[in-house]
Amino acid sequence: MVSTKPPSGMRDYLPEVVRKRRYVMEKAERIFQRYGFLPLETPTMENLTTLLGKYGAEGDQLLYRILHRGDKLNRALAQDGVQQADLAELGLRYDLTVPLARVVAQYGHQLPRFFKRYQIQPVWRADRPAKGRFREFYQCDVDVTGTQSLVAEAEVLNAISDVLQDLGFRNCTIAINHRVLLRSMIEVAGLAPDQEETALVAIDKLDKIGVDGVQDELVERGIPATAARHLLDCTVVSEGSDNAQRLKALRDLLPLTSAQQALDDLDNLFCLTAEAPSAPLLQLTPGLARGLSYYTGPIFEIVSSDFSGSLGGGGRYDNLVGMFSGKQVPAVGFSLGLERILLLMDEKGLFPALPMSAEVMICPLPETPLAPVVGLASRLRQGGVRVELYPEQSKLGRQLATVDDLQIPYALIIGSDELAQQKYTLKHLASGMQQQLDETGLLDLLSGSPTP
Amino acid sequence: MVSTKPPSGMRDYLPEVVRKRRYVMEKAERIFQRYGFLPLETPTMENLTTLLGKYGAEGDQLLYRILHRGDKLNRALAQDGVQQADLAELGLRYDLTVPLARVVAQYGHQLPRFFKRYQIQPVWRADRPAKGRFREFYQCDVDVTGTQSLVAEAEVLNAISDVLQDLGFRNCTIAINHRVLLRSMIEVAGLAPDQEETALVAIDKLDKIGVDGVQDELVERGIPATAARHLLDCTVVSEGSDNAQRLKALRDLLPLTSAQQALDDLDNLFCLTAEAPSAPLLQLTPGLARGLSYYTGPIFEIVSSDFSGSLGGGGRYDNLVGMFSGKQVPAVGFSLGLERILLLMDEKGLFPALPMSAEVMICPLPETPLAPVVGLASRLRQGGVRVELYPEQSKLGRQLATVDDLQIPYALIIGSDELAQQKYTLKHLASGMQQQLDETGLLDLLSGSPTP
Repeated sequence: MVSTKPPSGMRDYLPEVVRKRRYVMEKAERIFQRYGFLPLETPTMENLTTLLGKYGAEGDQLLYRILHRGDKLNRALAQDGVQQADLAELGLRYDLTVPLARVVAQYGHQLPRFFKRYQIQPVWRADRPAKGRFREFYQCDVDVTGTQSLVAEAEVLNAISDVLQDLGFRNCTIAINHRVLLRSMIEVAGLAPDQEETALVAIDKLDKIGVDGVQDELVERGIPATAARHLLDCTVVSEGSDNAQRLKALRDLLPLTSAQQALDDLDNLFCLTAEAPSAPLLQLTPGLARGLSYYTGPIFEIVSSDFSGSLGGGGRYDNLVGMFSGKQVPAVGFSLGLERILLLMDEKGLFPALPMSAEVMICPLPETPLAPVVGLASRLRQGGVRVELYPEQSKLGRQLATVDDLQIPYALIIGSDELAQQKYTLKHLASGMQQQLDETGLLDLLSGSPTP
Repeated sequence: MVSTKPPSGMRDYLPEVVRKRRYVMEKAERIFQRYGFLPLETPTMENLTTLLGKYGAEGDQLLYRILHRGDKLNRALAQDGVQQADLAELGLRYDLTVPLARVVAQYGHQLPRFFKRYQIQPVWRADRPAKGRFREFYQCDVDVTGTQSLVAEAEVLNAISDVLQDLGFRNCTIAINHRVLLRSMIEVAGLAPDQEETALVAIDKLDKIGVDGVQDELVERGIPATAARHLLDCTVVSEGSDNAQRLKALRDLLPLTSAQQALDDLDNLFCLTAEAPSAPLLQLTPGLARGLSYYTGPIFEIVSSDFSGSLGGGGRYDNLVGMFSGKQVPAVGFSLGLERILLLMDEKGLFPALPMSAEVMICPLPETPLAPVVGLASRLRQGGVRVELYPEQSKLGRQLATVDDLQIPYALIIGSDELAQQKYTLKHLASGMQQQLDETGLLDLLSGSPTP
């Protein structure tokens, strides 16, 4: 017997789980649509030329590659010293941002000038599976391309804030920082420009290993201890103060023109969103770094006192589309961590009851002719009722046990007499109450139930 | 510059296309739910041990395989004479039936005894791309496992009939036949048992190459001309007559007990569905063979005079789950050809208008302070209105051109005076009419619009 488990790090979503996943996705979609975001879907496979070099060396390692087939494979295998690169030219989608950049480069003229898109699709990463970390998982992204206006940042942040609110997440904040500000801190601290990447990677771990841990890591990676300390002083500036105070403190600390412009951006963004859903959530966090290298402006991350790690993040990336088209197209986006959101909603009991099963199961008594029963089921369904039909000739007790197992609220019991009189026995399982109803009565009583 | 096209045979779905695809999927889902079908989703990747040998030799060729990585790849490449089988152990989902069989084998006890599931997910086949044939495409399946009762066939056929009806397909019929009947015809015609597969493959081409073509193919493949002719006489029996007449003709022609039982099945199924949505569609078609080898009972296929080829098909397959679990679990299902349905709906104009864009775009005049505009947008959105916000400071004419491009019906024009008076100018673009409204008036007028 072969194994019937799904592959390692991947999951079968049984009906109850699908229902929860859809609940979250549909809430997010509904809100994205209210903000004017349009849906996009891209293929599961991308050319490796599209994917490679976009996610750093580690990302390239984690890509799933599609093995060549037929003649192409045979030619590759006939070579001496065949390598990975000879065996594949396609890979699986690794995130939703690079495909968006490719799409904007490819269809630029067919898309709205300001392209606001949302995309909810799975991605694949050959990471070591762990609790909450899967090899196939969904991302849920909103992005705006085509404008450098901070209104785009505001739209993205407000939409995400509405989703968090709508799903029931309280105690969340959105940490916000600016890549240019980070670069200025690095410069002011006296690091060499080529140490920027190293510094960002280390700072990104502030919430995990703390100030001392990052200090040690910076020194280990060849950054002088005094410079490291200076840099860390900037990133933890004005803990506990409000955004206005932090802006002021950073203005004093970072006199560079570039830093002052980045601080103007953040100041403007706080003003723009002052009356909007993200206002109470935004928290200027000078130590926020974000791992990905392609960010160029404001960066964001959802944090909460209720859990470690993040529920999502994003930022401005004005150069990524240009890597595909040669033409700069500014962009800003946010990616929600759907898997983590689902996990937390389960833990915190944030899901409402999600009825999924039918409202009624028709239970024909043994010896009942079935054609009129199937006919009745069809008419009730066409009237909008979710109807299950017990498929076998079986004793009523056994049928009612199935109704109970499936959590179906009503059983409709039909024998030959009921068929002759066109009056049927509707039994409410929880209360045990029964009533006789004709078809119209059934439709009236049952079609008012909410659809799932 | 690297290519920004999607890989060959795969597609980017831009927003307008996503909307159409979702329209069809949501209609199908809604109907499946009314029949008590529950949603299932399975991983994109399956172990190759799950997939291989289920789709015939050609299917095995068309599987996408995932290249090993890291040490596993290095070890494989270090071998002499490395083969395809050494380089991959995972493949991409090829259909939705085999994953269902695996899931039923794996989670049997956690699933309802009669498991009615629907599944709408992409599958991948490395076929040569052609018009309407893609390498990544969606399937839309309903199946019932756990019962041999013909009520399961009836449920599946009725649900599919309702979907076709609801999408606007007229002139469709569902051809129906029985694998045991085909086997009897092959026996009665005097073919050897080991010629059954060959005969089925040839008969499957009846609608494409006609009786004479199939006759030639049967003879070419070593079946005596008289036996071939005898077989074909059975498959084309009683053209033009109704189901009852065809049943009768076949009863006379095929005196074998097994054939009589298969004819009883079909007779019962016609009775069961007599008052149900599939009744006017079902057409006994003794020449229907269906390609796949795993069918064991009734088989179905949607046919239409309006187009060649099929919109979907299915049948009973009582042995497939047993290939995974060792325990027989009967099953019957139907797969809708979503891509072909979408193509035909476009050709025949069966899509209604599917508004997708916002209902209103807010156009702030240059120099208007933006924070209160963003605030107003947020409140309208929270009131359920789909609101677009022009992101840049730009001349009104340019903004209105964008409203028009995006097919947004209304522009809400806001300057400093409007902000001071909290009265805004709402312009209906098609008519050119304008009115002044406060926030309540805007909510009243706009939140009545249907959501997409």
